[in-house]
Order: sequence, then C-alpha cells, then structure tokens
Amino acid sequence: MLMEETSALLTDMYQLTMVQSYLDHGLTDTAAFEFFVRTLPDHRNFLIACGLEQVLQYLQHLHCSEEELDWLSHHDQFSNDFVDYMANLHFGGDVHAMREGTVFFPDGPVLRITASLPLAQLVETRIINILHFQILIASKAARVTLAAPGKLLVDFGLRRAHGAEAGRMAARAGFIDGLSGTSNVLAGMEDGIPIFGTMAHSYILAHGSEEEAFVHYARSHPGNVILLLDTYDTERAAEKVVAIAPQLKIEGIAIRGVRLDSGDLAEHARCVRQILDRGGLNGVTIFASGNLDEYELAAIEAQHAPIDGYGIGTRLTTSSDAPYLDCAYKLQEYAGIARRKTSEGKATWPGLKQVYRTMADGKMAGDVITTEDDRRDGEALIHPVMQSGERLAPSPSPSAIRKHTAHELTILPQQLHSLDVAPPYPVEISDALKQLAREADIRTG
Amino acid sequence: MLMEETSALLTDMYQLTMVQSYLDHGLTDTAAFEFFVRTLPDHRNFLIACGLEQVLQYLQHLHCSEEELDWLSHHDQFSNDFVDYMANLHFGGDVHAMREGTVFFPDGPVLRITASLPLAQLVETRIINILHFQILIASKAARVTLAAPGKLLVDFGLRRAHGAEAGRMAARAGFIDGLSGTSNVLAGMEDGIPIFGTMAHSYILAHGSEEEAFVHYARSHPGNVILLLDTYDTERAAEKVVAIAPQLKIEGIAIRGVRLDSGDLAEHARCVRQILDRGGLNGVTIFASGNLDEYELAAIEAQHAPIDGYGIGTRLTTSSDAPYLDCAYKLQEYAGIARRKTSEGKATWPGLKQVYRTMADGKMAGDVITTEDDRRDGEALIHPVMQSGERLAPSPSPSAIRKHTAHELTILPQQLHSLDVAPPYPVEISDALKQLAREADIRTG
Repeated sequence: MLMEETSALLTDMYQLTMVQSYLDHGLTDTAAFEFFVRTLPDHRNFLIACGLEQVLQYLQHLHCSEEELDWLSHHDQFSNDFVDYMANLHFGGDVHAMREGTVFFPDGPVLRITASLPLAQLVETRIINILHFQILIASKAARVTLAAPGKLLVDFGLRRAHGAEAGRMAARAGFIDGLSGTSNVLAGMEDGIPIFGTMAHSYILAHGSEEEAFVHYARSHPGNVILLLDTYDTERAAEKVVAIAPQLKIEGIAIRGVRLDSGDLAEHARCVRQILDRGGLNGVTIFASGNLDEYELAAIEAQHAPIDGYGIGTRLTTSSDAPYLDCAYKLQEYAGIARRKTSEGKATWPGLKQVYRTMADGKMAGDVITTEDDRRDGEALIHPVMQSGERLAPSPSPSAIRKHTAHELTILPQQLHSLDVAPPYPVEISDALKQLAREADIRTG
Repeated sequence: MLMEETSALLTDMYQLTMVQSYLDHGLTDTAAFEFFVRTLPDHRNFLIACGLEQVLQYLQHLHCSEEELDWLSHHDQFSNDFVDYMANLHFGGDVHAMREGTVFFPDGPVLRITASLPLAQLVETRIINILHFQILIASKAARVTLAAPGKLLVDFGLRRAHGAEAGRMAARAGFIDGLSGTSNVLAGMEDGIPIFGTMAHSYILAHGSEEEAFVHYARSHPGNVILLLDTYDTERAAEKVVAIAPQLKIEGIAIRGVRLDSGDLAEHARCVRQILDRGGLNGVTIFASGNLDEYELAAIEAQHAPIDGYGIGTRLTTSSDAPYLDCAYKLQEYAGIARRKTSEGKATWPGLKQVYRTMADGKMAGDVITTEDDRRDGEALIHPVMQSGERLAPSPSPSAIRKHTAHELTILPQQLHSLDVAPPYPVEISDALKQLAREADIRTG
C-alpha cells in the first residue's frame, strides 16, 4: 500500500477533533468497534467478506508524515498534545475478523478493532473505505461467476473504476471471487493475478486495413493472437481472419481467438462461429465484451451462444446496480461496558459479537449472531488475526482466498444463487445479545 | 499525484501489447485521440468538465519504475525493444482541452492528446480513469448545489468512496462545483479545500452521558462547537444543549450549531429550532446529514425546513443514481488522415474537433461541433494546454475553477437546472464534420 494510502490524515476531520477531545479528557481506555453491513442492497442475496489484507496493511503502516505533522501543528484547532500523539502513532491493538472470501449477511460483525479509544476511533474512515468497496465488488463478482459457470471471465474495469485504487482493489476482489484475471497490469504485477489483453479498435484504425492490422499483431505476439472483429463489420472481419490464417500457419502462428465488442453478442457469436468453422478454424475461441454484467451474461448463456469467455468492465468495477452498501463501524464497548446508539432506524446491536454458522446436508443452514462469550453450535466465523499490532499469520495469497470463496459458493444454499431476490437466509439474533441490548438501553435511557 | 498513480503500468494490458506491435511495425507517426462522452446518463441534463489538472500531472510524471521494468523484461510477451521504449518514456506530446468547470454535452471533445501513436495509445486507460470519475462527480455535485442554493454543503463521502483516490478526487470535484468544503483531511490539506468536522455517535457513546460528551467537546474545541443530537433522542438532546449553554457561556464558549443525522430531518429541524429558540439559542445553526442527495435536498428545501447546511456523502461520491458514464478515448487521426470506427451503435465522429458555443440574452444558446479548421461563430471551448510536454500555464487553483463553474451555472439555460430530464440543449454536428466522416468511411469501406 502506498504511503499516502496509510496516512492517518486519510480520514474525516471529526476523527481528529474527537481524538483530541478524548486525550484532553482522559478517555483513553480500551474500546472495541465492529464493522458490519446494516442491510443487503437491492439485488443481493448474500455478501462476500473482502479487504481484510488491505486493512491489516493500513494498520501496520499507519503514520503521519513530517509534512502532515507540520500542517497539523499550524492548524488552529489542534493542541500540542494532539500533535505529539499523532507523531508517535503506532497501531498496537487487536483485530478479529471473518476470513476473506467468506459469505456473510447483515448485522453480524465482519471485523473488530480493539485498541485505546483514540486509536480505534482514528482508523474508522479508512477501514470503512477499504472494506466497503471490496465487499461491494466481491459480492458483485460472485454473481458474475455464478451467471456464467466455467467460462473465462476477465475484469476489464480499470478505465471506469473510480480512481486508481478502486481499479486495483476491484481486480483483486474479482479474482478472489472466481474471475480468471484482469486487464489491469499493475494489479496483476503486484497481486499476482493473471493479466489479459490484446488490442483495441484504435490499433485497427491506425492501420491501412484490418487484414494488415491482424497480421501485424499476430507477428508481434505469435503466442497470444486474439483479434478484435467489430471495428467496421464483425462478420466481414471474421472472413478476413479465415483468409489470413493459412499464411500465418505457414509462419508457425496459430490464431487463438477473436473478440466481439458491440451489437447482439449472441447473434454475432453464432455467425462468427459458423464462418470460423467453415474456414477450418474450429479451435479459435470467441470472447465477448461491451456493457456486460451478470444479467447480460445470464441472458447470453441462456441462449447457449458459442461464446467461450467474457470481459466484464464498468458495471462490475462500479457495482452499477448497487454502487454502495449501508455499512457502519460502531463503538460496541468502551471500558468494559457494552454500548449502542438508538437513533431512529439506525439502532445497532451492542457488545463484542461472534457469528456461528450451522450446516445441513453440506449446505449452510443458518447463522446465529451472539455475544462473544455465548458459545453456540456451529463454526465460529470471527477469528483473531492481529494481536498488539502483530499479524498472527502471514497473508494468504489471492489464489488461496479464491479457493476458499469457490468452496463458500458450493455450500451456499442453491436458492441464494439466483440473480433475483430469494427468500432471506436465516440469521438469528441470540437471546444473550437481546439481553445485552436491553441492559445498554437501561444505562443510557 | 503518487508515484504509483503515474505509472505507465497503471493501464490495460492491451495498451502494452499494441505499443510493442506499433514499434515492431514502425507505426510511430503522430496520432490524435479525443476523450468525449457518448450519451448523457439518465437524470443528467448537462455535464461538467473536471480532471484536466490530474491528467496533466499524470502526463508530466508518466514513468516506469526500475521494479516495473524488471517485471516487464521477465514477462514472456515483451521484447527488449519494448522494454527499452518503456525505460525512456517521456510524454512530449500536446494536449488540447476544455477548461475545468465548463458545462459540456455529448459527442464533442473534452480533451485531445496529440503524440506519437505508441505514446498516445499507452495513456488511454489512465486518462479515462481520471476524467470519467471526476466528470461524474462534478456533474452530480452541480445538481446538489442547484438543489440547495445558498446553503452550506459539505462532502462527507470519503468512507464510502471507491478507494482513497476516489475520495480525494470527489472532494476536489465537489468543491469546484460549489460545495463549501469536505470532511476529508488529506484532500483539504493537499488541495487547499476548507475542512469540516466535529463529532460522531461513538464520541457520545464513549461518555457516561450526552451532556458530559457535549461539555467535553465544547471545552476541547471552543471555537467550533457543533453538537450531534441523534445518538439517543434528538429533541431530548436539544433540551440538553439548552441546559448546558449558560455554563458554557460563563466559560466564554458559544455553541455554534447542532447536527441531525437520522429520522425525518425537516420535522426534527422544526422541533429542534423551536427548542433552541425558546432556550435563547437563536444563533445556533442546524446542520443535517444522512443518506442525502439532490433529490432529498430539494424535498427538504421545498418544505422550507430551518436547516442551514447539509453533509452529502455516499450518494455524491459514488454518483449513485448514475455511477458511470458512457465515455471513450478514440483515435481521431493518424499520420494526417482522419479515422473512425463504425461498430454498431458505437460509431464516432472522426478527425480533430472544436466546439463553438453561442450565447443569447446572457444564456448558452447552442453548440456546434465541427472540424478544427472550420471557424464558426461563438466561443471556442477547446484550448491548447500542453505543448511538447510543457504546460502552457500554471495550474489554476480549485477556488479559481470554482468561480468559473459558478459562472457557467449562471449562464446555463434555466430549464437545464431541473433535476428531472429537460428538453435537450441544442448541439449541432457541422456539415464539415459530416463530410469528413463520409470520407473516412469511403477509405475504410
């Protein structure tokens, strides 16, 4: 993660004003905050945990640069004590979290920070910023992979992702959720994700003719010849592919595939398949792109169109049908006492929590959200991952997380695979948690 | 801009494979690409140009690091010549663009890059990534400012923006478009944008009582006392504000404002205003936040609720009702010859273009999109901003751009101020441009 992305000033102003006031008044006891999602957005039956790795990197490198400290010390709202605190910033707290790639539902914690109140408060904004977006994209990408099982699926979304970091995080979240790779070179290089890409329309336009462009490309990249067909006329371009294939074969170059990027993709794929097959190019694959998402994929797949893979761009990296989540990072306990707010429509469950998941017939059967000390049947989903600022295990690779997510999708109840809204998965709030909420309300009422 | 944000590998893989093939086959003549928007998204009557400053910074600092060059040289798809090219990368081209903050419409160019074909190609992905998002947010923010004229409007969106860079770019785009400032400390520090923020619910929850929390905050930040009312019960909290005001006054501390964050904001504002006024706190302002956007603002303003300012978060920084634009960066001319693709539904206007805007009665009356050499009446909107890699003028400050945008909104036809879809603004494609398109099609047909 870049220096600026782990800056303590990458936060909302109110975190700083609150920290100063906590320090002024001695509110420096241990606090626990939990991150959770309040409600499923429209068109989602489940969510996928994602972004823990980036949260841990952020906490490990949390800092204030000299320039930032200088700026703070010249700002009329901040005291010398506060600037000293920021100069000595070090995250020495604990983190409990759900494993990345795990299916989850609203109300239960995804991540808990336990640290002195000022420190746990300060990191709120960036933790939400990291987790919100990656959960959003992972949950969208899971739907994309469910819509086109077994197909090659590539993230093409960098150009319309919301900034550079969104592009990179989306590439990782997509890969974890079953996409085959990304067009994003930097994400591929830094996170070890397979990288895909061949040519754009401009490449064809710059040449005197489509045939010349195809042949030039094949000679430059003989191991990866995938030719873009729709710059002028898709079917005429397919005929040109057939026409140049024999000469390329003599040169030892095999055409691997073609790409369609406009019009009725299923219809063009059928025509192009016929042209290629008639020309003896049965092994050449067809790849499609252009305004795709899980709904388009499902519609094309239902037609059994002869398409071998898809590039999914803008609608994936912006999660366009649900571009944000109703999520929060809330104080659950301070100085050993459970807390919750009771704002209209925004009341939360207090205290330190655990989520237990039970299974039946090899599928997820129901979750219970309860207090941390109330041991229940089933698998506990929240685990310690950082203690006193030290990671308890090395980072799992994106490939390892990808395997876990694939397993999660196999145990997800079948009705939740639907792209439409399914009956909700059973999530129970335990009596112990309800009792804790009553006690918290009596104290503050 | 950070090092990684100006990396030449922050791009789609196909840019690299195309660049290598251009180099292999001597396609290194001058190319011109233009960035434009194809269609207005739903719920938008106009767009605002934004992000030129970041594009210029990117071009000035475009580079490949040693680590990146090493990675490229070990990748089996890249030649030594290509790696040498990337090692010596320097943007020495020209940029023409619309001034940031200018109102614009589909089809016309917002920015043109003129450089050798490989270079102009390589920068496509990041240029779209920068311009797409900032235009999206600036165009959303303009609607927010039109919905609540004269009110204090603050960007609260960092936590649910799509990553760190999105948060920063959104803060800038919002300020340029008339917002008063941002909660984002780093954006405020680096771009000189006013920063706002006081306290969250957790601050109240951590204290033994709401009164104690209010008093502690007032003593820590006597010059900026804005108290959050809805942690437990909004009206009871307003009574507590009245109760503590006399003691704070004795200490020389004036309460500046209160914030509402849940429930029916207009109704709560009326009740709270009454409580404050009865308590002699007529000067205390009311600030509201929570799931706001231009539609909510317009509804609250229509009720003449006594709200003095608003915090606008998630729905602004994700542009939630239109989270992406149909935009493109297309090759317009190569080696002096105009080009265009004719893909179904995606045909574009070829050649180097200019946009002329005419005025009538102090309002914008219509645009003509034409070829660069076809001089028309009205103001030309596309200007040279970089020549041979050198900026032609220093960066305008966000405040200067903000003034320009404010002027643009005053000359925008009144019917386009509507939050609903208005009759389209007249944009004409010139005969000269249509003729150029016919010539391009004949050459490639």
